[in-house]
Amino acid sequence: MTVKEAISELTLLQKKMHALGHATGMIYLDSVTTAPVGTAEGRGETMGILSSMGYELFANPATEKLLKFLREHEDELTEQQKREVVVLTREYERTSKIPQDEYVAFRVLVNEAQSVWHKAKDQDDFPAFAPYIEKIVATLKKFAAYYKPDEEPYNVWLDQYERGLTMSTLDEFFAVLKETIVPLIHRIKNEGRQIDDSFLHGHFPIEKQREFSDYLMEVMAIDRSHCGIGETEHPFTIDFNKRDVRITTKYHEDNLVSSMFSVIHEGGHALYELGKGDELMYTCLDSGISMGIHESQSRFFENIVGRSEAFVNLIYPKVQELFPEQLGNIDAHQFYLAINKSEPSLIRIDADELTYCLHVMVRYEIEKMLFSGDVDVYELPDMWGRLMKEYLGVDVPNDKSGVLQDSHWSGGSFGYFPSYAIGTAYAAQITHRMEQDLNIDSEIASGNLKGIVNWLEEHIYKYGSMYDPADLFFRCCGEKFDPKYFTDYLTKKFTKIYDLNQG
Amino acid sequence: MTVKEAISELTLLQKKMHALGHATGMIYLDSVTTAPVGTAEGRGETMGILSSMGYELFANPATEKLLKFLREHEDELTEQQKREVVVLTREYERTSKIPQDEYVAFRVLVNEAQSVWHKAKDQDDFPAFAPYIEKIVATLKKFAAYYKPDEEPYNVWLDQYERGLTMSTLDEFFAVLKETIVPLIHRIKNEGRQIDDSFLHGHFPIEKQREFSDYLMEVMAIDRSHCGIGETEHPFTIDFNKRDVRITTKYHEDNLVSSMFSVIHEGGHALYELGKGDELMYTCLDSGISMGIHESQSRFFENIVGRSEAFVNLIYPKVQELFPEQLGNIDAHQFYLAINKSEPSLIRIDADELTYCLHVMVRYEIEKMLFSGDVDVYELPDMWGRLMKEYLGVDVPNDKSGVLQDSHWSGGSFGYFPSYAIGTAYAAQITHRMEQDLNIDSEIASGNLKGIVNWLEEHIYKYGSMYDPADLFFRCCGEKFDPKYFTDYLTKKFTKIYDLNQG
Repeated sequence: MTVKEAISELTLLQKKMHALGHATGMIYLDSVTTAPVGTAEGRGETMGILSSMGYELFANPATEKLLKFLREHEDELTEQQKREVVVLTREYERTSKIPQDEYVAFRVLVNEAQSVWHKAKDQDDFPAFAPYIEKIVATLKKFAAYYKPDEEPYNVWLDQYERGLTMSTLDEFFAVLKETIVPLIHRIKNEGRQIDDSFLHGHFPIEKQREFSDYLMEVMAIDRSHCGIGETEHPFTIDFNKRDVRITTKYHEDNLVSSMFSVIHEGGHALYELGKGDELMYTCLDSGISMGIHESQSRFFENIVGRSEAFVNLIYPKVQELFPEQLGNIDAHQFYLAINKSEPSLIRIDADELTYCLHVMVRYEIEKMLFSGDVDVYELPDMWGRLMKEYLGVDVPNDKSGVLQDSHWSGGSFGYFPSYAIGTAYAAQITHRMEQDLNIDSEIASGNLKGIVNWLEEHIYKYGSMYDPADLFFRCCGEKFDPKYFTDYLTKKFTKIYDLNQG
Repeated sequence: MTVKEAISELTLLQKKMHALGHATGMIYLDSVTTAPVGTAEGRGETMGILSSMGYELFANPATEKLLKFLREHEDELTEQQKREVVVLTREYERTSKIPQDEYVAFRVLVNEAQSVWHKAKDQDDFPAFAPYIEKIVATLKKFAAYYKPDEEPYNVWLDQYERGLTMSTLDEFFAVLKETIVPLIHRIKNEGRQIDDSFLHGHFPIEKQREFSDYLMEVMAIDRSHCGIGETEHPFTIDFNKRDVRITTKYHEDNLVSSMFSVIHEGGHALYELGKGDELMYTCLDSGISMGIHESQSRFFENIVGRSEAFVNLIYPKVQELFPEQLGNIDAHQFYLAINKSEPSLIRIDADELTYCLHVMVRYEIEKMLFSGDVDVYELPDMWGRLMKEYLGVDVPNDKSGVLQDSHWSGGSFGYFPSYAIGTAYAAQITHRMEQDLNIDSEIASGNLKGIVNWLEEHIYKYGSMYDPADLFFRCCGEKFDPKYFTDYLTKKFTKIYDLNQG
């Protein structure tokens, strides 16, 4: 085998993996947008077959040999090819280290867990779901030992979602957040002004909200010839390649801003995928590098841009044009205050910008304890209640508004939640760096976000998965991640919004 | 290899082929319903890769060996397994007989031809498209010689779409049709009453038409949990398996019956796919057997049921409820006459039940001449005009309303058109047979078509691809195909509708 032959084999292998990913992604997208209700069985059959075809294609001795050969000829490879070999080698090790029967058993467990969780949440029946948490955690601990026998199992899973992330980083990160946010919440409660957001909960016809989504995507400089928008129960972003990205939202007739911020948030994810370098197409590098970096992009647009006064000033004429009866008597500043109203609450996905990360912290603390064995699974509801009270000051009335609210654990995702918080915090530091090149408020005031999008493309998007998250972050910001940027941002923003004494 | 092992290999191979088909079908469905306009490139890439994965999976010596082994152990196989081996062996021979480079070159030619045809049609520029017809026919003649060197090339292609169909059958078939229909058209023109259908061309809001589609599917006893409806430029039906079928329609605000008959027609295709036997799922037998039989099912519902007075009587209260302003003053009989108005016209897809098959005949005559070399491709517009005048009595003003109107030739489909006509004629004979067991009008009057659907499921649907079309037809009807049933049906129906002297 010559290096040239090996590279063309590597390229073809990646194209095949990409095509299978495109196929399963499309079948998934159909399932949550269009498919009739009774079609799960055949879809499951096809997904299973395609996934085993992907496994056979990738996790075999030929791949191992190919990757080994290319590592041995590293100096004949381009930077991109080297990176492809690195990423695929990691993937190969991850895939091949778990015995196939154990992997299949885990997929079966998780499938069952998901449907049990749905029912348990509906019926507020935590004990029905508890044994699944127990079994899933036990399996994940075993798998972690296959991957990295010398590492703390929970660290292994954190690393899966955000390479390099560890409990020691997160402990420090959350400690800093807690130190800032908890007192701020108290001051808002005790000293803050009253903010009226009742006008956000009028009647907003869905047809008009759809027009609003189109407008928001236009402002965000999202190229609609390469990015569609659909409607699903839970908003998400999926990309098939950099020229074919789809976002979804969910419209609520009695709530204007729920879909508005879904569109802006998912639009942020979409811009990342749309801005990747052409040269990465159909390779394993053709995706955002990590959960945390991805979330930094969506949260940047959702919170730092979307909840800024400059952005409200830009879009408010359109908002009033679309909803004259509902918002004709409300001025832009009132709207700005309303969309930033902070109030401790029970449900993570409805949480405001200030309290959001504390919801994540509750989950992080519990996941750590589950992995260390410091909490019994049946004690989780109590533990959840205690932590929610301590961090957010709220009482949890039942498990469906508490420990059963999120789907992640039933899907086998432990170590995933922290990336939501870390990404949110990344965004503040990236903003700080961006401000050295751009005046963000002026960019927004110019009429659309093209200038901001171009900056992000240049500093983040175009690299796809060329660099690990910490490396990419350092390249972008010129320094390591520091949560101080985020806490400073929150303090400044919410002190002003709630008119708190700055002393 | 034991027979048991071979069978499980055969099953897995079919499941993989099915999964790839599901995947490409879904990507296609997305492309015509939801995909943003700029996404063709990545879709083409994935479709190409998935199609070559399918080729590699199937057209290789292991498949040949497997099929040979199973043929040698035929007596140890079930009827269904035997049939799977037969169908896959045919498919294997078809696939492996064409050199891969020639096949790829043909796909490239056809891709180009399709985009040239689009432009040529827009610009009424036949000479731009003519060389592609020439090249495509030349290639198809060459391929036909690879398949069956001793057979007339055009017969080889007829057989691809309707196994067993030949020019001699079709010559006779079309002669009988022409003999009946041409004089009938003249009598309608000269002696028939005037039928007013102007009220079908008012304003019919699309939202109401969507409700109408739902109602029609309910009447047709289509299980909506397994059959969705979407909207596309050209209506079609696609199935992923018997429990996941999708139809599409196209709404025209100024035309109520265009979408109505699309829904009924595609609903007929859908019922066929929904009614296949469970035991065929994920095998090569899990689809309707042929173009002709499929068309017999769609045309049966569209024409024989959907354009019957019993059906109009059933649905008309709903029609008036949905469109009170437009149709409040029109009675059911007027509506029945209007949807059956027959008038020679230029465009096949807009043709009425009586004249439709003559449009197909024009194409059939021309295809035959192209394959025999009896016409030069540049003479096609003249030839088209002459035949349209002879069969339908109309003058063709330009090529976009003439020889350029259909996409089929640009896609490489020659020998396909006749199956539209033959299927339409099958439907009449199937109806005759059904009448021996059921009173169709009473079934319709009962409120829905469940009784009719059950009969078709028992006599046609459930067999999927278990039998070749002629065998299935014989099993169903107890006799061979005879176009007389169709000409009798047309004569009787249109004599009555146009109040012609029966002498």
